[in-house]
Amino acid sequence: MSSRVAVIGVGITDFGELWDESFRSLITKAGTEAINDSGLEGEMIDAMYIGSMSPGLFSSQEHVSSLVADHAGLKGIPATRVEAACSSGALALRESYLSIKSGEMDYVVAGGVEKMTDIPSNSAAVTLMGAGDQEWEAFKGATFPGLYALMAQRHMYKYGTTLKQISQVSVKSHDNAALNPKAQFRFRVSLEQVMNSTPIAEPLRLLHCSPITDGAAAVVLASEEKARELTDNPVWISASSCSTDTIALHDRDSISQMDAAVRAGNEAYRKAGVKPSDIDFAEVHDCFAIAEIMAIEALGFCKLGGGGRLTEDDETSLSGRIPINTSGGLKGKGHPVGATGIAQVVEAVSQLRGEAGKRQVDDARLGLTHNVGGSGGTCVVHILSNE
Amino acid sequence: MSSRVAVIGVGITDFGELWDESFRSLITKAGTEAINDSGLEGEMIDAMYIGSMSPGLFSSQEHVSSLVADHAGLKGIPATRVEAACSSGALALRESYLSIKSGEMDYVVAGGVEKMTDIPSNSAAVTLMGAGDQEWEAFKGATFPGLYALMAQRHMYKYGTTLKQISQVSVKSHDNAALNPKAQFRFRVSLEQVMNSTPIAEPLRLLHCSPITDGAAAVVLASEEKARELTDNPVWISASSCSTDTIALHDRDSISQMDAAVRAGNEAYRKAGVKPSDIDFAEVHDCFAIAEIMAIEALGFCKLGGGGRLTEDDETSLSGRIPINTSGGLKGKGHPVGATGIAQVVEAVSQLRGEAGKRQVDDARLGLTHNVGGSGGTCVVHILSNE
Repeated sequence: MSSRVAVIGVGITDFGELWDESFRSLITKAGTEAINDSGLEGEMIDAMYIGSMSPGLFSSQEHVSSLVADHAGLKGIPATRVEAACSSGALALRESYLSIKSGEMDYVVAGGVEKMTDIPSNSAAVTLMGAGDQEWEAFKGATFPGLYALMAQRHMYKYGTTLKQISQVSVKSHDNAALNPKAQFRFRVSLEQVMNSTPIAEPLRLLHCSPITDGAAAVVLASEEKARELTDNPVWISASSCSTDTIALHDRDSISQMDAAVRAGNEAYRKAGVKPSDIDFAEVHDCFAIAEIMAIEALGFCKLGGGGRLTEDDETSLSGRIPINTSGGLKGKGHPVGATGIAQVVEAVSQLRGEAGKRQVDDARLGLTHNVGGSGGTCVVHILSNE
Repeated sequence: MSSRVAVIGVGITDFGELWDESFRSLITKAGTEAINDSGLEGEMIDAMYIGSMSPGLFSSQEHVSSLVADHAGLKGIPATRVEAACSSGALALRESYLSIKSGEMDYVVAGGVEKMTDIPSNSAAVTLMGAGDQEWEAFKGATFPGLYALMAQRHMYKYGTTLKQISQVSVKSHDNAALNPKAQFRFRVSLEQVMNSTPIAEPLRLLHCSPITDGAAAVVLASEEKARELTDNPVWISASSCSTDTIALHDRDSISQMDAAVRAGNEAYRKAGVKPSDIDFAEVHDCFAIAEIMAIEALGFCKLGGGGRLTEDDETSLSGRIPINTSGGLKGKGHPVGATGIAQVVEAVSQLRGEAGKRQVDDARLGLTHNVGGSGGTCVVHILSNE
């Protein structure tokens, strides 16, 4: 059994509408970059995990584990696709982590990928609704913007959260995305632009919603012993946790709070032996702006209902008390659903290595990633450390 | 780290065209039966892995890990779907096994499920082609019967394998299925019936092809320490191995042999410290009759090219030297693709517990399961022992 597991290499493609790229070209680019970054040779890799939500519906392609191992020139290695909707990427990382902890692997690649723009965007919306409960939500007409709009309505009613506060999440995300050369939207937006953008599902506007994105990301993990041989700057996975909730929103005790995130966060803090105030920065799952506010509450960065205020007070910006989504988040960087959980970790590793350029958080030592499937049916949290 | 991992509970639904069952009802039935069989309470389960190939295309439902945890009354536990086409089930077992070996889990449920009959059967055939290479096979018109027909043609040309030998696989599968109350086809067929059945893709006839099936299966795994506390008849997982190959058939060195199966088999024998002649029975992936012949060669039960003869000589029947597919196999028992890898293990455990009734292999001590994704892009092998 390996006592600790380290990230020793990272890779990420541009995020956006990438007409010249395919599913296989995207993941192979990210994986090759990660393996090169780790200093390993391809044949040293013991296993591969691929997070992808819906290659079957987006590209008519299942069995992507074999496809990727083949296309990357690594045929023969054990390869596994894992899926839990938009949290597929973080689960690929988690299974890679567990496989090294089992003692059966030394070097494992965790990749995430989604090629979303090869079908019409209305079909993409239907596909994404596969993350919800088909029989109890989708067949009744629910869409993801609709479900998150219900959460936003309830949060505003219960805590007095304002449209301005929700909109400030998007302003901050775009501020950070403007500094991220891989981001889909490398430009800033004003509070007025966000608040006046096209209504989608009351109270959510277009600029509160993450986009349809093509992209891939990959990381290479190693056992503690191997990591120490290979690199002077390993980033350690201090904790990996996952929790589930009802897949359908109506079955929850509360829709203004994600219990799976609270449970996964608390378990991660316990495993890592740290508390929320020890965390220097976090990448959280802002598929819609309200989701970021709920996330920072669930993770204990402020009290329940205080997420809007924390955002409005600029405490989540790059220079704030707890910088959130320095990458630009799902809103600014883009949201290729299966890739997002790994992309969050790529950003965290960049921060912990001090390689985040203009987005660098001063003295970053402890980072957290928070990846959500559906409306909160799955939440996966990782805590990473450079010490 | 747990030194060994045991199967302590099994459950399986009827296999067939089950119009009164849904995706969620099937997997919940199998999972509940497995948990009851283990003697555990639901709340003791630490994690869940679900193997399913294409719930998105068969039922518009992704995120089935959350769905199943929820519907089974186990919300909160970490739940992960794994997929590698028709080998998804065995990979769910493998990830469950690794998660216990990691030391982070004591009790884990591995389930497999597919609800295939809610779409027209021609759509199902298109969906199943997602297991192949879309860009290089499916778009050119290849189907899975077509790909396996190519393998059969080559095997017949290279080794003199006869249509009669290939047909004998199906006769033997139905002989066994007739004794399995859960099987889709609980009746025998004659050699003449098989050889004269509707041509599908030369040389394959209808009765050489596994059917479209609804069904689910589940097993409960435990660490060695916990298994010894709970049960007097644990079945040990002596080895778990996985290998990949090119996803497309045309890229292989040979199409009359599956290299992934050879690699996975050899690794499993090495890990378990046994050789092919030590194995008392095996459940192999006979999606088409020729696949069983190639499997028994790849696993070393006879020499390369000798699979047809071994079958014709009745050595793979219940009373033969190495009984193959005592359950009836994919052909006779049915092939709900994501469930198959777990169903194979359910049969192996029944044999190793001496609970296989009329299908019981005398003095069964060591069994092997062999689960294939696509045309051999993935192969997963497990060796199980009652000692």
